[in-house]
Amino acid sequence: MNLIVANILPGKYDTDMIIPSAAILVIGDEILSGKTEDLNARLLIGELRELGVALKRIFVIPDDVDEVAQAIRELSTKFDYVFTSGGVGPTHDDVTLAGIARGFDVPIVCHPQLEAIIRGYFGDKTDESHLLMANVPEGAELIDGPDIRWPVLCVRNVYILPGVPEHFRRKFLAIRERFRVAPFFNHAIFTKEDEFDLADNLRAVAAANPLVAIGSYPNFSSEEYRVKLTLESKDATALDAAVSQLMDLLDRDRFVRSE
Amino acid sequence: MNLIVANILPGKYDTDMIIPSAAILVIGDEILSGKTEDLNARLLIGELRELGVALKRIFVIPDDVDEVAQAIRELSTKFDYVFTSGGVGPTHDDVTLAGIARGFDVPIVCHPQLEAIIRGYFGDKTDESHLLMANVPEGAELIDGPDIRWPVLCVRNVYILPGVPEHFRRKFLAIRERFRVAPFFNHAIFTKEDEFDLADNLRAVAAANPLVAIGSYPNFSSEEYRVKLTLESKDATALDAAVSQLMDLLDRDRFVRSE
Repeated sequence: MNLIVANILPGKYDTDMIIPSAAILVIGDEILSGKTEDLNARLLIGELRELGVALKRIFVIPDDVDEVAQAIRELSTKFDYVFTSGGVGPTHDDVTLAGIARGFDVPIVCHPQLEAIIRGYFGDKTDESHLLMANVPEGAELIDGPDIRWPVLCVRNVYILPGVPEHFRRKFLAIRERFRVAPFFNHAIFTKEDEFDLADNLRAVAAANPLVAIGSYPNFSSEEYRVKLTLESKDATALDAAVSQLMDLLDRDRFVRSE
Repeated sequence: MNLIVANILPGKYDTDMIIPSAAILVIGDEILSGKTEDLNARLLIGELRELGVALKRIFVIPDDVDEVAQAIRELSTKFDYVFTSGGVGPTHDDVTLAGIARGFDVPIVCHPQLEAIIRGYFGDKTDESHLLMANVPEGAELIDGPDIRWPVLCVRNVYILPGVPEHFRRKFLAIRERFRVAPFFNHAIFTKEDEFDLADNLRAVAAANPLVAIGSYPNFSSEEYRVKLTLESKDATALDAAVSQLMDLLDRDRFVRSE
């Protein structure tokens, strides 16, 4: 239960080729019922990409302790990092901490440093309802960082962030750099060939280039192109080789542009 | 393997109090990597709400057969309806149908009606790559509807929709009415009380009103209010009772408005 200062501890990975994986767990009836639009997963998608982390899963689930517990067990086992959004206030619909504790099968305990922070903030007005916020899953760590009043709570590989978008953003930015690894390299090719014509060539290039992820996205409303092909890799040399192989197979007359 | 005309078969539920549940499964590396913004889950959130269906889960997963299979097994067992988005074209990254077949442990077979539709569309130009699109999980049904050229494919309780947003939208709207049930009733209360003050009262009202879902959402940037409380139910009488109980417990001096 130590206070870890962000950016001092290195990330889990420091080689180019190992790609850390991540999942986002949004906990919120308000998102599923359409009362509130999700902004937090949307922010993290771009942030994780820029950091070189491979986002592998987004779950949006209801405010339910057992649902949170089950999702945490699954996601924390499968992925290097799990980021939760929402469910961390003092009301009955805030079940994230209880769910994480149940997921890891640990008790909820009072965190002395968190209690000190709460007492420091509320001063003489501190009451029982405030102090309940010091109750967290056993083993939780506090991560301090720039521009945040309250530290980010972390249990094992689960980083717990608030649902209110401006707080979510500020807290994630405060801990962001600890996740940075080598960047992804990207290439896009636009063509007027249709996916039926492209399928065999794409299959061949994808099979021959395991370090490169290749995607094919038709656009039925564009005048300019019919399909956008995306290639991406952490290995710039592997990416160039795949782009070059694919370009050799494409119909030059229907090629539009690449970037 | 019958062609079902939308709006003729009634929905699974026709009573007010049984609330059908749904999950959205978005299959797409392009969403997880931030290359494309999800519009389809966002559309369905609002549509399902308006139809009276309770959305209980959104999953966003990669283009991977085993990942799709596992998600389909879980979601189709837990929820009444599963809507998939993406991964239905002819290229190597289109793995939705293979994933659904694996999830249900059924073979991929040629669907004679789908083959006839494909031959009717492409005419003399029909080739093997087009006909591959007639290969679907055994037991798949075709649902026809207004304004759609291609029927919606459905395997058991899984409705398979394309990733391209304009096609996703048109296809969902064509089958939408088969899912309609009694609507949700909503009420919102805005107050200047903070969540620490509200927590006990909310817990009491939530416990006494099991037919009503109560949410509490702080807003730290509003001048007008501090917390928005939402109450919702399929039972208008139960909703009114809960609103009235809660209003009696709230601090009148800090009440802002309700709607």
